[in-house]
Amino acid sequence: MSDQSMPGASSAISADDLRFMAAAIRFSRRHLGLTGTNPSVATLIVRDDGDGPVIVGRGVTAIGGRPHAEPQAIAEAGEKARGATAYVTLEPCAHHGRTPPCAHALVTAGVARVVAAATDPDDRVSGKGYAILREAGIEVVEGVLAEKAADLMAGYLIRSCRKRPEVTLKLAVSADGMIGRKGEGQVPITGPVSRAQVHLMRAEADAILVGIGTALADDPMLTCRLPGLEHRSPIRIVLDSDLRLPLSSALVLSASAVPLWIACGADADPRKKQALIDAGCRILATESINGRIALPELLEDLAAQGIATVMVEGGAKTAEYFLGEGLVDRIALFESADAIGTEQGLAMPDVHSHIGGFRPSREAHFSADRFTEFMRKP
Amino acid sequence: MSDQSMPGASSAISADDLRFMAAAIRFSRRHLGLTGTNPSVATLIVRDDGDGPVIVGRGVTAIGGRPHAEPQAIAEAGEKARGATAYVTLEPCAHHGRTPPCAHALVTAGVARVVAAATDPDDRVSGKGYAILREAGIEVVEGVLAEKAADLMAGYLIRSCRKRPEVTLKLAVSADGMIGRKGEGQVPITGPVSRAQVHLMRAEADAILVGIGTALADDPMLTCRLPGLEHRSPIRIVLDSDLRLPLSSALVLSASAVPLWIACGADADPRKKQALIDAGCRILATESINGRIALPELLEDLAAQGIATVMVEGGAKTAEYFLGEGLVDRIALFESADAIGTEQGLAMPDVHSHIGGFRPSREAHFSADRFTEFMRKP
Repeated sequence: MSDQSMPGASSAISADDLRFMAAAIRFSRRHLGLTGTNPSVATLIVRDDGDGPVIVGRGVTAIGGRPHAEPQAIAEAGEKARGATAYVTLEPCAHHGRTPPCAHALVTAGVARVVAAATDPDDRVSGKGYAILREAGIEVVEGVLAEKAADLMAGYLIRSCRKRPEVTLKLAVSADGMIGRKGEGQVPITGPVSRAQVHLMRAEADAILVGIGTALADDPMLTCRLPGLEHRSPIRIVLDSDLRLPLSSALVLSASAVPLWIACGADADPRKKQALIDAGCRILATESINGRIALPELLEDLAAQGIATVMVEGGAKTAEYFLGEGLVDRIALFESADAIGTEQGLAMPDVHSHIGGFRPSREAHFSADRFTEFMRKP
Repeated sequence: MSDQSMPGASSAISADDLRFMAAAIRFSRRHLGLTGTNPSVATLIVRDDGDGPVIVGRGVTAIGGRPHAEPQAIAEAGEKARGATAYVTLEPCAHHGRTPPCAHALVTAGVARVVAAATDPDDRVSGKGYAILREAGIEVVEGVLAEKAADLMAGYLIRSCRKRPEVTLKLAVSADGMIGRKGEGQVPITGPVSRAQVHLMRAEADAILVGIGTALADDPMLTCRLPGLEHRSPIRIVLDSDLRLPLSSALVLSASAVPLWIACGADADPRKKQALIDAGCRILATESINGRIALPELLEDLAAQGIATVMVEGGAKTAEYFLGEGLVDRIALFESADAIGTEQGLAMPDVHSHIGGFRPSREAHFSADRFTEFMRKP
């Protein structure tokens, strides 16, 4: 397969290629939500000395975003990288800083073949990383399991192309489509396994967002409380035009431990603003339209600060607002097997009309609950 | 001048145009360092009903970056905007979110003429803002005092074009070119007026950066301590590959009040890292080359998080490192009238060889001290 006499020639993809790329993609998941403004990328270096292919070097983007995956994998492989195949979940970077770009690092290491999944849309990289490899006589196979790799990097890719973060809307509904009980605060709709899954999603997100209605009704913490992952709570954002969030709320009281950003209108009470700042919150400047915070502008500002993934966790109004603006990329729908009943239940009227624009992309069962992920139709 | 029969025609610039644009640029300074990832821009709306031109609306980008200057000025002017001239220090934005772009807001307000200074390099705006105005029959004069406006927005412009923040190197030297005294900590080289000036520069910057040498020798706070501007201290960044910064340093002890980011190498002691995180510091992941933090990569990451201006305040090694990498855009040189002497003094050997690549752009005297600002030659 490693036909160096035909640099850049496209070549067949073997079952091993698919297997190793799938492993690289699973490995890339390790630092999701922890790599700052860089995506969490993985590299596996694999060589076959006659006894079948063996992984000789592994790298995943380090916490904070540097070093990148490739130099770590190359360092682990050492001399064994020479003549080996590198599996990269994203096109290797091509732009120079003080350290060589990853594409050059692969050339210097002497790999014979690079199998890549997603292409980097950053205009300092796009296509240039592959070109550097091919110019050096390395065989490059692009696009292997690209969709799968891109799925995990969707935040990075959307932020690069659309200058806003990826938005995932989480919904938990009863068997009869209710999202809560009238007049009650936080009621568990789904079971503990689904809730653990939601906390895992929080750990992998850059930010989590709720409306002031949910913040007042539920007094939530919005942290990741999975044992061992407590330090991976994302930034918490509340849409609160009029600054109704009490200083005594669980959110504000934990603001010095886990960042709390509050999006309020330009004419919110400056004394309340200052009190929240003194409590450790950050106030986000926004544009308002009829007392509602302009979401596209807010998302643009979040992306400009490096936020690539936002998980919207309710409530109904916030969900509908994001759906109505066409700003939801992914819906994570958790459905309980139990019904609440129309008398007691709070329905979310318009969600099904919106879900028409999405296609199911993943399904699972968490104990008695059913989980479906929907992706926006292209 | 307001020749509506020739939309888009270039027209003469009057003395009033220069006067109002200079006023707009001075006004734009008000929120420098406070507008997040947006630049601090000003708009003046001026009309002449026969008694000479009068300012009827003023706007400066709000704290946090929204709302923009134009809608605020339009709101203040009300009906008086109709037929008036708008002075804008930056091309009005052209991209839609939930709120109309500023170029459309000017059209809707009915202004007859727009005089603009700098052009926005953001590819969602560049030229498009002017095009919207001209299509609506508004006379547009571009580039009035553009250099002066761009000077205040240099951070935004450099971040847009080069994906790194603007770097200003501050140097204080004695009359004989010494930057300190051997074996001593923080010694004042320049007088109190110069120091106040430095604190004002801090207030206007997004971040201030020092090397670990300076942090250890001087135990500085690096905050803005001008009366009334204490809340405008920028993020403080220390280059500290091996995490030598003590937990008892003034910087770490104030980390919960004013953000402290520490750039350390990938192999720094994880326990020390955790102790600094627990003390409220943020650890920046970096690439290292021979134990030195790779500055282009660090600056790229800072820009990706929205940092547009970095003020480098020493010491000698850090200054030379930034200069040697060609990463300094501006030098703020404070020279005292007093000499320290070669015996006691710490000279900075190579600075003059670097300053050759810069041209003096501003000069002032602060009490007995001389201040010169140098800009990198294009």
